[in-house]
Amino acid sequence: MSSIPREEIKNRLALLQKLMIKEGFEAACLVQTTDVYYFAGTGQDCHLYIPAEGKPLLLVYRDFERACQETPLTDVLPFPGLSSLPQILQERGYPLPKYLGMELDILPAAVLPRYQKLFPGSIIKDITPLILNLRRVKSSWELGRLRRAADLHARVFELVGDYIRPGRTELEIAAEFEAHARRLGHTALIRFRGLEPGMPLGLVMAGPSGSVPSCYPLPLTGYGLSPAFPAGPSCREIKEGEPVLIDYAGCYGDYIVDQTRLFSIGNLPPILQKAQEVALAIAAEVAAAARPGTTCGELYDLAYRLAKRAGLEENFMGWRMPAKFIGHGVGLELNEKPVLARGSEEVLAADMVFALEPKFTFPGLGAVGVEETYVVQDDGAVALTH
Amino acid sequence: MSSIPREEIKNRLALLQKLMIKEGFEAACLVQTTDVYYFAGTGQDCHLYIPAEGKPLLLVYRDFERACQETPLTDVLPFPGLSSLPQILQERGYPLPKYLGMELDILPAAVLPRYQKLFPGSIIKDITPLILNLRRVKSSWELGRLRRAADLHARVFELVGDYIRPGRTELEIAAEFEAHARRLGHTALIRFRGLEPGMPLGLVMAGPSGSVPSCYPLPLTGYGLSPAFPAGPSCREIKEGEPVLIDYAGCYGDYIVDQTRLFSIGNLPPILQKAQEVALAIAAEVAAAARPGTTCGELYDLAYRLAKRAGLEENFMGWRMPAKFIGHGVGLELNEKPVLARGSEEVLAADMVFALEPKFTFPGLGAVGVEETYVVQDDGAVALTH
Repeated sequence: MSSIPREEIKNRLALLQKLMIKEGFEAACLVQTTDVYYFAGTGQDCHLYIPAEGKPLLLVYRDFERACQETPLTDVLPFPGLSSLPQILQERGYPLPKYLGMELDILPAAVLPRYQKLFPGSIIKDITPLILNLRRVKSSWELGRLRRAADLHARVFELVGDYIRPGRTELEIAAEFEAHARRLGHTALIRFRGLEPGMPLGLVMAGPSGSVPSCYPLPLTGYGLSPAFPAGPSCREIKEGEPVLIDYAGCYGDYIVDQTRLFSIGNLPPILQKAQEVALAIAAEVAAAARPGTTCGELYDLAYRLAKRAGLEENFMGWRMPAKFIGHGVGLELNEKPVLARGSEEVLAADMVFALEPKFTFPGLGAVGVEETYVVQDDGAVALTH
Repeated sequence: MSSIPREEIKNRLALLQKLMIKEGFEAACLVQTTDVYYFAGTGQDCHLYIPAEGKPLLLVYRDFERACQETPLTDVLPFPGLSSLPQILQERGYPLPKYLGMELDILPAAVLPRYQKLFPGSIIKDITPLILNLRRVKSSWELGRLRRAADLHARVFELVGDYIRPGRTELEIAAEFEAHARRLGHTALIRFRGLEPGMPLGLVMAGPSGSVPSCYPLPLTGYGLSPAFPAGPSCREIKEGEPVLIDYAGCYGDYIVDQTRLFSIGNLPPILQKAQEVALAIAAEVAAAARPGTTCGELYDLAYRLAKRAGLEENFMGWRMPAKFIGHGVGLELNEKPVLARGSEEVLAADMVFALEPKFTFPGLGAVGVEETYVVQDDGAVALTH
């Protein structure tokens, strides 16, 4: 798989630099793999130094040759270690910045002082909000990558009907699903920003597993395998007539789509059938309303109103502590912006991409719902997944 | 799977409190899932407040009922949110600490100021080194969990011979391996401390994949699937007569073992056969020497001397930037202490657990080596994996 095209990188950097000037950052020093990949096209261990004006400098700790092959950037140097940073910048003629941006949302508190010591005259501010705002809007190249992920992911969901059977466990279904995805190039790893690496790879929730309260700020995540891993598939066997929700993010090398499908062997209880119809209606109405200029909070309110009109507001988006959002941005990470959250004034723009996941939980019975990944277009959001 | 026994939790807390008094911490406020699980037995979203003397307080954000079912602790309260922390502590009679310990190695720099604001009179210091030192030494209950993981993991490795074939890709082998492990209860998620969540789930490296320089501080990690995921299995097809290294951590619900096995279809080139014999000899000699009182640096030196005696020091532990360690602690996380690193003065004690992984790389040809997980006993380290 090739890296990010040169034009793409150029555009991204130009947009970031424009935002940096507007927000008063004189330089940025990026360290997170995903951000460095986004702006430099390589996932090697690098620091990416971006002045608000002028050319960025890619400093590669390891592996230098691999990074050189992958990045379209031209100023690439080996990076012997953190302490060499000020000297390298000085030698290359970069003035030390008054306001330096770093990713303070992911940089550990114990590590920040090391950078502060290297830039004693600088005020280090969090540059992540700028980056995340930029990453919301996908280019046509990115949309192509997302469509490719959606196509591959659809092939995995298509076969679930072949191996879902009463008596098989959630874990066995997960094993089949993941193996199929893996053979198609799934990374077996989904990147979340800022959350500690404890999120399950995907969810298979049969019957009551769908309604167990989650330890994550998500609508439903299942029982998991143990108190140490309390989310994701469990060893519970699937029964006839109960809902089986399968919720997996699909990452086939770079960009992520998120998708949920409801399965059942035999008919579901009428209340669950009704709730599933409402979930599908909510998805359709919210997608149609998701035009440039709409706020995320309006979309949440629309979904909630529809749930309430169906008398299902108590079952909406999880149990005991329901999620306060109905959708989330996806891209290189699963928890990107925009977040379709209650009260959010975030405004949608064309080519933003989000997963929309109206879901209903029924304590003891389980959960139903749907999730697709959409791109915002002028006349509403269009599904990328299928 | 049940949670951690009450006695176990009690002993761990008593040991931590003893260390806290010695190091001048008046209280600790733990937030990381793994640490909270270690000291409270639940993986729910909690803060664990531990005074240097007296009873700890488990504050549960979500889910309260699940946490109550899992933890053997008795002082458990719902936690409405961060801002309520000082008031809750005051109401329960905890004095505000002068020196407060937090996990500054994983707490983001942007988040620390929020805690500092809640504890304006406190000096917040990094308590992680105390926790990691404590977690090095495993109890007999923990060794039982590790043996269980080792038994399950052995069953997965046993079957590799059935599906490894020329023409199959590394990714296909990974898919089979992971599916088998998953059906046995593998979590499909390996926790690393402090590293951003970008590490591959496991490694399958055929021929040259074994000798590609890594972007991680590890001896070998393969090509991976793309520049965004540049480690782990690739789509390269396995050929006859080349080494295929399979390196997977086994986590079947809680504790992790780490293991590497070398496979080949047909004979390996003589230099690789010789190197594999040297790797096995190094593993045996280092394990025999890993007695309580030995330093980690001595063990690294022993391994290096044996590699050098065989004329293989240029091939030892990776290419271009070889790893500077030959083993690492394992437990709830894959990168625990002790680290068997060059120059380390860390002293081994009985019941410490580490993975030992002497490996050799041959640019263009691939890599060979072995890895087992051991426990330190009075007369040397004994393998848990088999």
